[in-house]
Order: sequence, then C-alpha cells, then structure tokens
Amino acid sequence: MRMRKKKWADPYLEAHQDYIFENPIDYKGKWKQILNCERLHLEIGMGKGSYLIQMASMYPDEGWIGMEKDRSAAAVAARAKLEGDGNTSNNRMIAGDARNILDWFEDGEVDVIHLNFSDPWPKKKYQKRRLSSSEFLKIYRTILSEHGQILMKTDNQDLFEDSVLYFQENGFILTDFSVNYRRNEHPEDAITEYESKFMAEGMPIYRLCAVDTQKNGDLR
Amino acid sequence: MRMRKKKWADPYLEAHQDYIFENPIDYKGKWKQILNCERLHLEIGMGKGSYLIQMASMYPDEGWIGMEKDRSAAAVAARAKLEGDGNTSNNRMIAGDARNILDWFEDGEVDVIHLNFSDPWPKKKYQKRRLSSSEFLKIYRTILSEHGQILMKTDNQDLFEDSVLYFQENGFILTDFSVNYRRNEHPEDAITEYESKFMAEGMPIYRLCAVDTQKNGDLR
Repeated sequence: MRMRKKKWADPYLEAHQDYIFENPIDYKGKWKQILNCERLHLEIGMGKGSYLIQMASMYPDEGWIGMEKDRSAAAVAARAKLEGDGNTSNNRMIAGDARNILDWFEDGEVDVIHLNFSDPWPKKKYQKRRLSSSEFLKIYRTILSEHGQILMKTDNQDLFEDSVLYFQENGFILTDFSVNYRRNEHPEDAITEYESKFMAEGMPIYRLCAVDTQKNGDLR
Repeated sequence: MRMRKKKWADPYLEAHQDYIFENPIDYKGKWKQILNCERLHLEIGMGKGSYLIQMASMYPDEGWIGMEKDRSAAAVAARAKLEGDGNTSNNRMIAGDARNILDWFEDGEVDVIHLNFSDPWPKKKYQKRRLSSSEFLKIYRTILSEHGQILMKTDNQDLFEDSVLYFQENGFILTDFSVNYRRNEHPEDAITEYESKFMAEGMPIYRLCAVDTQKNGDLR
C-alpha cells in the first residue's frame, strides 16, 4: 500500500535520527547490544508500523527493528511509536530500502524476519521487487541466524502461491503453514490495521514460517 | 466421504474381475505393458471414480489406475466406467486398501499419484490414516518413478495445511501450489462431482504438486 506523500515526513525523520535511521552502517553487528536483547526481529516493509509497535510492546525482552522504504509511511510509523508509549528501549526503525540490508546487518545477526502484507507487485516484470523473491531470499539467508525464521503473512493469493515456490526453490522449508490463519485465535501475533480490515470482510489470511535448510542441516 | 453400503457391490466386483481387481499381485511391474502406455497414473481413493474416468478419456495415451477401499464406492466407479464409454484399454481399477500398494506396484512404476478430496480424518488419533500422512508418503516414494509427482486437491483447510508440512518433513518439495485453484481455468484437469459442489458454493480448492528431492537430486 502506498500512501500520499507527507510534507512533514522529511523534517520529522531528520529530527528523530536517534530513533529512525537512514543508513545505519555503524550499527551493523551491534543491534543486539544496542537493544539489549538476545533475539532480534526485523520487519521489512513495516508500512505505518502498527505490527512492529504492537509486537515490541508484547515482547519487551526481544529486539525489534522495522524497515520501510516509503519515507512518508516510515515517518508515520516513527511518530506513532514516539508519540505513543514512547518506549524505544527494545526497538528502532530504518527509513530505507531492503536492498541495502547487507550494509546494515551482520551475517547471522537476525533471528526472525517478518514480511507482513508486502506489496504483491502483480505485473510479471516487477515481480523481482517482491520482498519474498529469490533475490531477497538470498539476502535474508545471509543475515539470518542458525535457527532463523522468516514469517510471512498476506491476503494476496498470487503473492502467497508464488512465494511458497520461491521458498522451495531457494532451499527453505516450511515449518508452519496456514491458508486461513485467523480462523483460529493467535493472541501471540499482533493484527495489523490492514489485516483487521480483511478479517472483517471474512477474507482468509495466508501465513507461513520458513527456515533455511542450508543453515539447519537437512531437518528431515 | 463414505457411502451407504450397496448390496449389489460384492457380486458386481466379482463379476468384473477382468476390470476391477482385489489383489492384483500378478500385475506388479506390468501395468504399463497391460495398459500399453509409457506414463502411469494412480489415483488413490478415487471414490465413485468421476475424476479417474474423465481423465482416462481426456488422456487416452496415458495409463490410469483408480484405487478405492470402500467396496460400494469401488463398485459404483467400475459400473460408471463399464456402462459409460466402456473403454478400458488404458485404465483399470482396484478395490483395495492403499496400505497394500507395495504388493501391487513395482519400485518406480508409477509416474503420477493423484489424491483428490481424501478423507480429512480430523481427529488427532486417526490422522495417520490420512492418505498424505508420512507413512503413506514413504510408500509413495517407493513406487514413484524418477521424476514422479504427487498431485493433491482438497477443500479441507486442516488437511491441506498439515499435508504441506508432511511433504516438507519427508523430503518432498512443492513445484506447483494453489490456494484457490479454480479461480483460473484449468481445462487440463477434470473436475470431480464433489469439487463442482464446492466451486458452486464459491469455496476455494487447494492444490499442490510435490516431487521427491531424494529421487530428483537437490532440485535447487
């Protein structure tokens, strides 16, 4: 989902560089230390941040970083957190593009990658931009820890179907899988704004958890 | 789906032992010769046979065997074929239990296994009976040819979700995958009686294609 450009976004991002970073190369390899945690989560494409903010509150002992390349959305997310409970001890944000992840995270530094309702890029020629595409999976593999996981949720059938194949083609196996995740209660997982709209319409939410067989041995 | 017992089933099966077999141990390893084909399909749990009969007509150069353990359903299936177009040159049926598959099929003899709307066995203690359970996948692996495939269709969310994990845990990878198969046209695949009921209600049909990484090398 793209949002209209907000004029206040750039000044806001500039004014809050201690919470939302644009190019945090100096923090590479140091995130767990900064956030004082043993387990690090990274949400890529956090949008307006509702998932990240909720999860950071629900799991205060774990570290949470949200990344968003749309600067207006990133500014909305940062403002929501800073003007909300304001607790930034276990979380930070990055206003930046996922293609630069390797500049910002060390090999094996991240334990869980979250992809929530990513842009489906329906046109064939743009499908490489999908955050679950093979090119991105190769990047994720590098920064994931030994038992690292990728959690993906979406309402988009085409994106989900194709993503299952991307994971399979790239040596990930699925360890959890749902074609209608919200038919059961999942108090452990925050519901995004976007997700609650779909739930209200009775639409299924698709979800999977993937792990890297190359890092986890054969697993079978 | 279970059906009411039909009194005429046993005599019918007995009278048509040249088409529907009960224990075809003598045909093990000879099916392609008998059906004069290079590619052999096996539908396990064919019910009343509507898929098998349609597919055998649609693909006359390929061999088709339908298996069903419910004797009444098996008799209905055989009768539908024999009193229908009556062409048995590329197809046969077996009234028998999938647990005996290794007695009836040689290693590597089958190219495609079809599982259509299998019994979901919802209760935990009966889930081993599911035709996509780990125990059955081990049997299927044995009889599948080098590039053999398992095609599964179902309307049942729990069965589908669990089955994806069974395949993953047993070293199969998914090469095709849909959470709403009939939203696109698939003239290459017959619609079962049961399936058309679900389609009419607007319910999604889940479908996957799985191949054995042990037989196909790493594939990735």
